[in-house]
Amino acid sequence: MRHQVCIIGGGPAGLLLSLLLHRAGIDAVVLERKPRDYVLARIRAGVLEQGLCDLLRQAGIGARLDAEGHVHEGTVIAAHGHSLRIDFRALTGKTVTVYGQTEVTRDLYAELDRIGAPVIHEAENVTLHGADTDAPHVTFAHGGRGQRVDCDHIVGCDGFHGVSRRTIPASVRREHEHVYPFGWLGILSETAPVHPELVYAGHARGFALCSMRNPHLSRHYLQVPLTDRPEDWSDAAFWDELRRRLPADLAETLQTGPSIEKSVAPLRSFISEPMRWGRLFLAGDAAHIVPPTGAKGLNLAASDVAYLSRALIAHHQGDDSLLDSYSATALARVWKASRFSWSMTRLLHAFPDEGTFLARMQAAEIDWLAGSRAAQTALAENYVGLPL
Amino acid sequence: MRHQVCIIGGGPAGLLLSLLLHRAGIDAVVLERKPRDYVLARIRAGVLEQGLCDLLRQAGIGARLDAEGHVHEGTVIAAHGHSLRIDFRALTGKTVTVYGQTEVTRDLYAELDRIGAPVIHEAENVTLHGADTDAPHVTFAHGGRGQRVDCDHIVGCDGFHGVSRRTIPASVRREHEHVYPFGWLGILSETAPVHPELVYAGHARGFALCSMRNPHLSRHYLQVPLTDRPEDWSDAAFWDELRRRLPADLAETLQTGPSIEKSVAPLRSFISEPMRWGRLFLAGDAAHIVPPTGAKGLNLAASDVAYLSRALIAHHQGDDSLLDSYSATALARVWKASRFSWSMTRLLHAFPDEGTFLARMQAAEIDWLAGSRAAQTALAENYVGLPL
Repeated sequence: MRHQVCIIGGGPAGLLLSLLLHRAGIDAVVLERKPRDYVLARIRAGVLEQGLCDLLRQAGIGARLDAEGHVHEGTVIAAHGHSLRIDFRALTGKTVTVYGQTEVTRDLYAELDRIGAPVIHEAENVTLHGADTDAPHVTFAHGGRGQRVDCDHIVGCDGFHGVSRRTIPASVRREHEHVYPFGWLGILSETAPVHPELVYAGHARGFALCSMRNPHLSRHYLQVPLTDRPEDWSDAAFWDELRRRLPADLAETLQTGPSIEKSVAPLRSFISEPMRWGRLFLAGDAAHIVPPTGAKGLNLAASDVAYLSRALIAHHQGDDSLLDSYSATALARVWKASRFSWSMTRLLHAFPDEGTFLARMQAAEIDWLAGSRAAQTALAENYVGLPL
Repeated sequence: MRHQVCIIGGGPAGLLLSLLLHRAGIDAVVLERKPRDYVLARIRAGVLEQGLCDLLRQAGIGARLDAEGHVHEGTVIAAHGHSLRIDFRALTGKTVTVYGQTEVTRDLYAELDRIGAPVIHEAENVTLHGADTDAPHVTFAHGGRGQRVDCDHIVGCDGFHGVSRRTIPASVRREHEHVYPFGWLGILSETAPVHPELVYAGHARGFALCSMRNPHLSRHYLQVPLTDRPEDWSDAAFWDELRRRLPADLAETLQTGPSIEKSVAPLRSFISEPMRWGRLFLAGDAAHIVPPTGAKGLNLAASDVAYLSRALIAHHQGDDSLLDSYSATALARVWKASRFSWSMTRLLHAFPDEGTFLARMQAAEIDWLAGSRAAQTALAENYVGLPL
């Protein structure tokens, strides 16, 4: 088969790119390794920058987001004796929207189905060929039969473990990695959120985050040692530890209940350069991973897709300049968002191996933040998303 | 002899405190270990926050500062491909003033002499007694004879190596220290500054700072390994290395000349808590050391003196509340300024042992700083000095 663009990976980045391209009359196919039900069951991020919301509206799938998404005008940082609200709207004029990645994916599938844009699930042994030539193609197995897609461009949206990045020769790739000495234990529960906005709690026992998907579905996280497994933590132990890490007023009103999902994820910063090799372009987790502190993962994938969709559309209008600058443009924003995620992680987690000095620097930064509008604005402008 | 306040140490902190107290009719004596000529020959900081300038004027010694000091409305950060001016006045409405610590000390001596406030030089074996009682006293040797000062309060302005801090029992003190894996090699030369404002240069080879005392006297620094000694660096080698670390336009116009002083200083963050023990109060380097990045050392000593002079004056008016809160009040500002000095040091120096990730985080922060007024304001408000 032949398509103008072959997108590897059917997560939100790949699906959104496909939709934006189809809207512009460019024919794209998405190849996804897993069945659709599996993709839709993935529990992922849920805090959308205004730029991502605008992009979803531009793609024509903003209706449910606007009806069911919850606009958050601020967040709470509770650490080192302060319980401090960062007022996004007052400081930056922007907001974020809580709307689960699962819901975004569902909306994307529905619209791609409606317009007949192809998404091929359970595509196995996906292999990229000739990405550095003028005639790339992709092979894969589907239902036991070999398949081939000829295309003008390949886009790798297949995540950290995907094949796309590794198709770029090691001699060309520069990979930067930073591993944090802890993970996040997360649970999902059908309970009301402890607070209408997200609460980032820095505590000597470790970081905690109170997040949510909607007014009846809460997502909570605890910083835990990397050696901890989900089965080491009973629901009761989780809630007890969370209560210890929250300010007293929130701990008192914390609503608990059985977990409906429980998992541990390590925290990692990873960036692979360049994000383009010949006719192969990377977007999202395929090129970069951020720690979840600050909720930048999905939003960075979205900004990659925004840049890349514009560039591919311009290419089909005869202008290759945006394709040529894509890697540099996307990476400039990726590095800045990675810095923010790293600095929020450094600010709010316990680093027992680094001694007491870092903890006092964290406390001093919170104390400064509490009294400085400039510091709050600097944090807020990163949280709501740096301009595209 | 009897004085109301006995100040240990005749650096700018001790001399300024003495002058402020005498202005309020409080009798203070200063005990200094070294001869006056030695104190006046010390080469130290030269960037004064507006708060310190205001304090010098309030003490009645602002005339020469106002005539000869150079007001700087901004500074330059040259790193990772950016050459970025931070406009203090536009961002914060405040400025800093370049005026050597030596000149401040000279002005303080002249005024203390004029009003007859006692400064005893070459006071040896200074020992504090009964600091935790209602009747403290200080003994010392002077010209071979034992002397004793009875007083109401003792103030330790005798620096990191002084006796005052160590008079506080170890069981009471909490000391926090962070040592950086490099030092600063500094030279003073009778050459014109390379730029009218200070230039903070971040470079893969290491940090460099172009500072000055006046339009004919330049002070330059290079980040060097802790093992380097001043005699390892010829003047020519210094200038060559500095040229390599500066942006091309500045490197081209760099005026070189023989060094008239050359020294290596290690970089350290140090804070000792509490800053009060009974009737002993610590101020300046006796309680805290910051790395010189961001020029906070002298300015922090000055804010301690501002708080402490107010508190001692209030005490003599029958109100002890400011004395009781002195340690907490001073430390809150000390920790914030220490955080700023630490973060500027982390932002601009090379940390080869920490791998490439930190260097990329530095580059991303500079890149963000270049485009964010909020980030520039947050930096500037620390540089010009947080409010007292």
